[in-house]
Amino acid sequence: MAAEIRLDVALVHYPVVNRKNEIIGSAVTNLDLHDIARAGRTFGVNTYWVVTPYRRQQELARQITDHWTEGYGGTANPDRAGALSLIRIQPGLDGVIAAMSEAGGTPPLVIATSADRCTNSMTYAGLQRELKRGTHVLLLFGTAWGLAPELVQKVNAVLPPIQGVGEFNHLSVRSAVSIILDRLLGNREGEYTL
Amino acid sequence: MAAEIRLDVALVHYPVVNRKNEIIGSAVTNLDLHDIARAGRTFGVNTYWVVTPYRRQQELARQITDHWTEGYGGTANPDRAGALSLIRIQPGLDGVIAAMSEAGGTPPLVIATSADRCTNSMTYAGLQRELKRGTHVLLLFGTAWGLAPELVQKVNAVLPPIQGVGEFNHLSVRSAVSIILDRLLGNREGEYTL
Repeated sequence: MAAEIRLDVALVHYPVVNRKNEIIGSAVTNLDLHDIARAGRTFGVNTYWVVTPYRRQQELARQITDHWTEGYGGTANPDRAGALSLIRIQPGLDGVIAAMSEAGGTPPLVIATSADRCTNSMTYAGLQRELKRGTHVLLLFGTAWGLAPELVQKVNAVLPPIQGVGEFNHLSVRSAVSIILDRLLGNREGEYTL
Repeated sequence: MAAEIRLDVALVHYPVVNRKNEIIGSAVTNLDLHDIARAGRTFGVNTYWVVTPYRRQQELARQITDHWTEGYGGTANPDRAGALSLIRIQPGLDGVIAAMSEAGGTPPLVIATSADRCTNSMTYAGLQRELKRGTHVLLLFGTAWGLAPELVQKVNAVLPPIQGVGEFNHLSVRSAVSIILDRLLGNREGEYTL
């Protein structure tokens, strides 16, 4: 690969939908921070953005992150510090895109993920090509029952849902992030041929 | 695919190792049950074995599973019932292998996973071929810092570690299961070319 790969991940807590397809805000969870940070660190993600407009939730995310990067957790478990140091907290996606634009010189390509098939889709291979060509990419994941439609309509493209063997597609967001990062960035050299 | 694929997953809580490589028993966690059951259901896993010799831990795993399959959780969230109904609890791997042997007519091919490179390894493509040929496979995952060496020495083969971009390989077991099931069984038709 010639160009340096730059992929950021955002975990969105608002606006997302609930089971009835209503717009809600979801709660930050400890394990979403840890599991996604560990996967992000494994696959070379640049920044893991935790997006919530709620002040108390931002504080909670910051306390957890600080414990593992600057506090006792980081001393006891340096690997975990390396993972959680990827986390940045933002109230909304506008702030994420502004920060990425400033750091990268141009706005990122914003790609949503969804458990449903969307019209505006880009294949995994297509996104892999963009990454290898050096395009800065922001990959959005929704908590609860997924990203709000108003948000999905504004992105550049949407990745196809992860398909298993049947109709069931209720992966946790932690599993979805892990699988998608592996599909885009996993090193399968000598291990795997389709 | 001609033959029916039969893959079982076992999450081992004993014997596993801690950070200092000492043999320990780990605790059952709610999210390991949920996330791995949801990934298992997505990718067509037959049974998700939760392996712990501790009575109280078996009871805890059973209470959580029952709540979501027979209790209120299953009524409120039927998708979750579909996932958690894959779970069976066993005190040790001998019981898992005996149950699989009885159900399948022959003992399963037992494959371990590890964050380290092992001599007795089988590629993802190799295991995929075994599955497509109809071989019954039991895939072992360790909690804490991974499966005890005494256990890894007894299996038929070990899958290579999941590699990202650097040396960091501290994925959660939930992420590792998700990625490995996707590598073996994910349907990438039209979405993905390496």
